[in-house]
Amino acid sequence: MNLDFFKNNNISVDLAIEAHDIVRGQLETEIPGAVVDRHNYENATVTVVKIVEPQAAQMMGKPIGTYITIDAPAIRDNNRVAQKEVAEILAAQLSSLFNLPENANVLLVGLGNWQATPDSLGPRVVDQTIVTRHLYKYAPEELQGGMRSVSALAPGVLGITGIETAEIIKGVVEKIQPDLIVAIDALAAGSVERIGSTIQLADTGVSPGSGIGNKRTGINKETMGVKTIAIGVPTVVHAAVIAQVTSEHFLEKLQQNPMFSQIYNNLSPDYAQDVINSVLAPFAGNLMVTPKEIDDLILSTSKIIAGGVSMALHPAINAEQYSMYLN
Amino acid sequence: MNLDFFKNNNISVDLAIEAHDIVRGQLETEIPGAVVDRHNYENATVTVVKIVEPQAAQMMGKPIGTYITIDAPAIRDNNRVAQKEVAEILAAQLSSLFNLPENANVLLVGLGNWQATPDSLGPRVVDQTIVTRHLYKYAPEELQGGMRSVSALAPGVLGITGIETAEIIKGVVEKIQPDLIVAIDALAAGSVERIGSTIQLADTGVSPGSGIGNKRTGINKETMGVKTIAIGVPTVVHAAVIAQVTSEHFLEKLQQNPMFSQIYNNLSPDYAQDVINSVLAPFAGNLMVTPKEIDDLILSTSKIIAGGVSMALHPAINAEQYSMYLN
Amino acid sequence: MNLDFFKNNNISVDLAIEAHDIVRGQLETEIPGAVVDRHNYENATVTVVKIVEPQAAQMMGKPIGTYITIDAPAIRDNNRVAQKEVAEILAAQLSSLFNLPENANVLLVGLGNWQATPDSLGPRVVDQTIVTRHLYKYAPEELQGGMRSVSALAPGVLGITGIETAEIIKGVVEKIQPDLIVAIDALAAGSVERIGSTIQLADTGVSPGSGIGNKRTGINKETMGVKTIAIGVPTVVHAAVIAQVTSEHFLEKLQQNPMFSQIYNNLSPDYAQDVINSVLAPFAGNLMVTPKEIDDLILSTSKIIAGGVSMALHPAINAEQYSMYLN
Amino acid sequence: MNLDFFKNNNISVDLAIEAHDIVRGQLETEIPGAVVDRHNYENATVTVVKIVEPQAAQMMGKPIGTYITIDAPAIRDNNRVAQKEVAEILAAQLSSLFNLPENANVLLVGLGNWQATPDSLGPRVVDQTIVTRHLYKYAPEELQGGMRSVSALAPGVLGITGIETAEIIKGVVEKIQPDLIVAIDALAAGSVERIGSTIQLADTGVSPGSGIGNKRTGINKETMGVKTIAIGVPTVVHAAVIAQVTSEHFLEKLQQNPMFSQIYNNLSPDYAQDVINSVLAPFAGNLMVTPKEIDDLILSTSKIIAGGVSMALHPAINAEQYSMYLN
Repeated sequence: MNLDFFKNNNISVDLAIEAHDIVRGQLETEIPGAVVDRHNYENATVTVVKIVEPQAAQMMGKPIGTYITIDAPAIRDNNRVAQKEVAEILAAQLSSLFNLPENANVLLVGLGNWQATPDSLGPRVVDQTIVTRHLYKYAPEELQGGMRSVSALAPGVLGITGIETAEIIKGVVEKIQPDLIVAIDALAAGSVERIGSTIQLADTGVSPGSGIGNKRTGINKETMGVKTIAIGVPTVVHAAVIAQVTSEHFLEKLQQNPMFSQIYNNLSPDYAQDVINSVLAPFAGNLMVTPKEIDDLILSTSKIIAGGVSMALHPAINAEQYSMYLN
Repeated sequence: MNLDFFKNNNISVDLAIEAHDIVRGQLETEIPGAVVDRHNYENATVTVVKIVEPQAAQMMGKPIGTYITIDAPAIRDNNRVAQKEVAEILAAQLSSLFNLPENANVLLVGLGNWQATPDSLGPRVVDQTIVTRHLYKYAPEELQGGMRSVSALAPGVLGITGIETAEIIKGVVEKIQPDLIVAIDALAAGSVERIGSTIQLADTGVSPGSGIGNKRTGINKETMGVKTIAIGVPTVVHAAVIAQVTSEHFLEKLQQNPMFSQIYNNLSPDYAQDVINSVLAPFAGNLMVTPKEIDDLILSTSKIIAGGVSMALHPAINAEQYSMYLN
Repeated sequence: MNLDFFKNNNISVDLAIEAHDIVRGQLETEIPGAVVDRHNYENATVTVVKIVEPQAAQMMGKPIGTYITIDAPAIRDNNRVAQKEVAEILAAQLSSLFNLPENANVLLVGLGNWQATPDSLGPRVVDQTIVTRHLYKYAPEELQGGMRSVSALAPGVLGITGIETAEIIKGVVEKIQPDLIVAIDALAAGSVERIGSTIQLADTGVSPGSGIGNKRTGINKETMGVKTIAIGVPTVVHAAVIAQVTSEHFLEKLQQNPMFSQIYNNLSPDYAQDVINSVLAPFAGNLMVTPKEIDDLILSTSKIIAGGVSMALHPAINAEQYSMYLN
Repeated sequence: MNLDFFKNNNISVDLAIEAHDIVRGQLETEIPGAVVDRHNYENATVTVVKIVEPQAAQMMGKPIGTYITIDAPAIRDNNRVAQKEVAEILAAQLSSLFNLPENANVLLVGLGNWQATPDSLGPRVVDQTIVTRHLYKYAPEELQGGMRSVSALAPGVLGITGIETAEIIKGVVEKIQPDLIVAIDALAAGSVERIGSTIQLADTGVSPGSGIGNKRTGINKETMGVKTIAIGVPTVVHAAVIAQVTSEHFLEKLQQNPMFSQIYNNLSPDYAQDVINSVLAPFAGNLMVTPKEIDDLILSTSKIIAGGVSMALHPAINAEQYSMYLN
């Protein structure tokens, strides 16, 4: 698979680690200007991709910044020990991306459509998060020390509100002037094994056109005027990707035969795309591949994210309380 | 019952018609500066209370403006003919409160908490309304003639967002600059027979402290800078009101006996309130009286409101289409 | 308050402890044939009422049997430590009511209407319970030692199915022949302070006419042919009870005055009831008093019940796992 | 595609018309013992496949019986005129499959899992259907003339109840002894264009192993002792089918080249299956392809089915009332 396939099908590559691996595969060498680091945990692997040079950004189609991927297939199996560990890793990694005083003011934004299950992750996280902004000024000073002022918003999607999501957020940001935005969104992955098992953190915010709902405007430092960290979990794979990957696997072996390339070269260059279009009509880009248990997966994943975010933003919430909170 | 009871119990009198009737009853004469007009329909009665003088406003605890009450007990019985008629009346009355060109830009705001059934009316209406703002600029001119540009927002409540609802709305209003705001909210009534059977329209917007969720800041022309019409339906009666009304009914007959007034006058003036407090502890102001079928009632009422609002805002939606839409 | 009020208003006294206290109050002495025992815990009080004589059963309007009440106001405040303790107490008390081999076959029944929030407790518990019957025969023997074969059913209510709930359960019971039925139901209490703070266990099953939805047929050993334990939590108080209690509190002080009894005796005996009827029309028996946060309360209570039931039925689930499960 | 692919991947071919077309394609001639008839309507095409000979049944993997397919892509576009027409066609076709006196007793069964959106069609229909069995015996005779006695059950799925769905239904059937069972289920299709646009009626009931949730036991005349009609709507396509169809389309053109067959014949016969397995791991058979708007699609489809079923079972419900009901 290469990035052109995604562009041609109007599908965003939401995970930086996938964009990296695709480009790395095409280059057959390390990408200049991108730094990759990996750590293993009991139930998870953390990969940090830093895009440091404009050239790497351009090749990968992602802005310069830090992208942290937590891979933890165990959380998909309702393994609560793993879910707890992953929430803790998420809290630590999220903390590493910001540097804020304890009295900072943070706005959580739950992106996505609560009426479409696979896209409802963000609103679900917001529903499960402890907000404190309205209590904060009345709280005793010692509590203020360990709790940040947190507010939360689920702005909906264009089809429900008629308003660009970024406009709604920007309007609220101008009113409450947070020091940091943390935006949570459901993502589309390039392979089914990432569904419900991968969490991405990015200090670049949300790019225009990414996510399941194809947000048109980005939500990031440039558009919001405030540092924005995005947290995303793939909940679907576009059906076109399944079709494409199948074709590629299929060709792989065939191409080992020298005669085949002759045949293949006679095909129209649009042939593969034509096949995909015909298989997926009349839904085209709106067909998603999800596990049958998507409702469960959204529920358990939203709890992990809500737990991790709460721990990172409120240092006074200790692991014990958090465990109670998480589950 | 008098308005002091509500003040003492920190309960708002959401319906102007009830405030009117209470004050009218206390005065035992028409309220100077308030004009009342009534029309009967097959399945509904429409009462228009106009508060025209500051004195009347002060006595009734409501700002100067027009308050339209549609009383239609039949809509509570799943009578679809009545529901259709009431939606049409709502559309006509709503239209009478604004005077806007067909290309005006309207923002619907669904107030209330979608996680608390009796308070979820506003968000439900928003979920069922046709929004057009994002399509409007691409629509053919002839369609633009009959459809207004409508956007919609369900801002949530302070306990979920940590942000004053009025702040969120104001932020969005500054971005999209609507010509009119229509805010939908679940209300508390002073008698159970109004639950699910009364719709109030007010060109004064939403007053501070009204509604089930006790919104702190008003949503009206003053706070928003834009004309604001409120549509409300009572979905609860505060339990304290039930207790109070019971006491009053009880005393009514007793007081016919001259000896009784002697006994009664010996009671502490706080006695009635003490009874109410003890009966309703430990929930106090958070106890609501609702019909067992509150979920159904919210669903059917939200459809009527969504239907009526759509007809009023989009003149091109005719009755036939609307009937399909409504049900 | 006396039991006649409930009969006249067609309201069941769902909690045996309330029936006991009402009769005890009327008798002004211990009820012959009823034994009461009380234990205090950190966050809860457990009261066991044993009705051992037919006379006591007749006076209290409850069948002979054991009724365990767990009172724990702390669980209503989202106090997770208290919620955990109460789930453990529930597990222990539930275990005390049955005496079953570890390979016994248990059917959970979630009574009530999932479309009416205050009545949805039973179906919610069933949705959160670990069922094992379908896995049981394939499970390794050592696991079978600590897990019982558990199945679960949410039969709905008459208005949704057109079938008596007891008929549905009986049909399933005849097919799967459980050794024990545990039926979970939302109850109506006689005072608001019990809402969401009291759990009742009864080895007499569910009586005809009890519960919010007024089940017509009992679900008990007689009707099912299988030992049946009922677990109930009050989620509402009938509005008529609020009106009645208010009247009674009101009269209490008045009656201290000797002149008053003269006045009072001149009132029609139906006077109090007439007041209640007029205050609650047109909803009458269908008006419920609930806290505004009833949705939250149902959610957190259902988790406690599901946790306690799982611990009692599956001895292999230890406290640690259970804590993860509960929250 | 041939039927072996489905067998090898443990996927049922839920639509008889698809089984027919696959076998017809393989045979390259009409299937002996199967009769096909087609009618066109404004917004729909109705195809009746009658399997009359055991040989046809064996070839198509479907029992002898009548299978009616209503194809109506327009209902997917929220076209309410088309939805109304399709509900009327459904009512007429459903009526054609049974021959019952007006006082017959009908049990609706909503199969599937209400906690998994694409599988929740059956329970949703049941929630929206008018049940009358509990009212029937009290109804005036003239009403009984036009309304049948209808009851409804949503038995859940094995993973939620621990009980075979067929056992629950059979237990209830033995209690209430209906004259007819109508079972509604979400299906899997062989092509995405059928999602939300096709309705199948079958007088053979539900076959073992069909539906999204892979019901193990059939629900039909043999298992229930009562005539059983199944109504199904495809809401998903198995991801494996997408992969397979893509491969086939891909090969189609390649195979026009004589050299290619040589290469292809060198591939292991398991090659295609290996590709599919690797693309879809780790979810395998649990990956479904659905439109992003699956929640909307389930909602609108369930209304059409509920409307059509109500019209067929209650002749007294006329089109006007039904239109109100449907929408």
